[in-house]
Amino acid sequence: MNAELAKLLKYNSDGLIPAIAQQHDSGEILMMAWMNKDAIEETLANGRVCYWSRSRQSLWRKGESSGNGQKLIDFRLDCDGDTILLLVDQEGVACHTGRHNCFFISAKEEGVDIISDVEISPEEMYGKK
Amino acid sequence: MNAELAKLLKYNSDGLIPAIAQQHDSGEILMMAWMNKDAIEETLANGRVCYWSRSRQSLWRKGESSGNGQKLIDFRLDCDGDTILLLVDQEGVACHTGRHNCFFISAKEEGVDIISDVEISPEEMYGKK
Repeated sequence: MNAELAKLLKYNSDGLIPAIAQQHDSGEILMMAWMNKDAIEETLANGRVCYWSRSRQSLWRKGESSGNGQKLIDFRLDCDGDTILLLVDQEGVACHTGRHNCFFISAKEEGVDIISDVEISPEEMYGKK
Repeated sequence: MNAELAKLLKYNSDGLIPAIAQQHDSGEILMMAWMNKDAIEETLANGRVCYWSRSRQSLWRKGESSGNGQKLIDFRLDCDGDTILLLVDQEGVACHTGRHNCFFISAKEEGVDIISDVEISPEEMYGKK
């Protein structure tokens, strides 16, 4: 990683930075996950998005089990250096539920709605590789 | 807050959830900040976005010092209930630097670029109310 970027990145107390993934052409927000220093370095070096899985405590190469990876188009950082925005080209669906993006729950004061459909069943998605 | 939403929200150990603000019509990602239960309740009740300021440890009614508030268009939650997506109508600029959004640093392996201009000086922005 170049020194200029390294100086700007502000990790939290777990050594992580939240990363928003946005489809580069449509503007759709696909998901949010976390990156540590290794994930950032691998993503910038390979042009394929790699997160840090907090539940598995390991590098999470998006698509390694679902087949639905993310090609990096641009890597952006916010004014405080504590949030990353990844402009990506999503292969298949981004969400583990089989929906295209993870933000399918719409909440009003009176209740919640599910606003997008499952495009592929999780069984099919995680069995296909 | 309705019980359905309350059951889905997953706060971190500080009682906070990250919230991404996206301009509802253009898809521009404006900023990311944090919300606690009170901020969520106030936002849903008033239709004006209220965050929790981690630095000030108090409710942060976006625009209260800058004049640049956010009207809530839709409140969305992700599959895990641990990230909020706010579709908003941004008044003025979102970033405290005077840029329209906070994600103005573009990083490559070799260095970083500033990709958007300041639209209003912070002095003018924070002095105008």
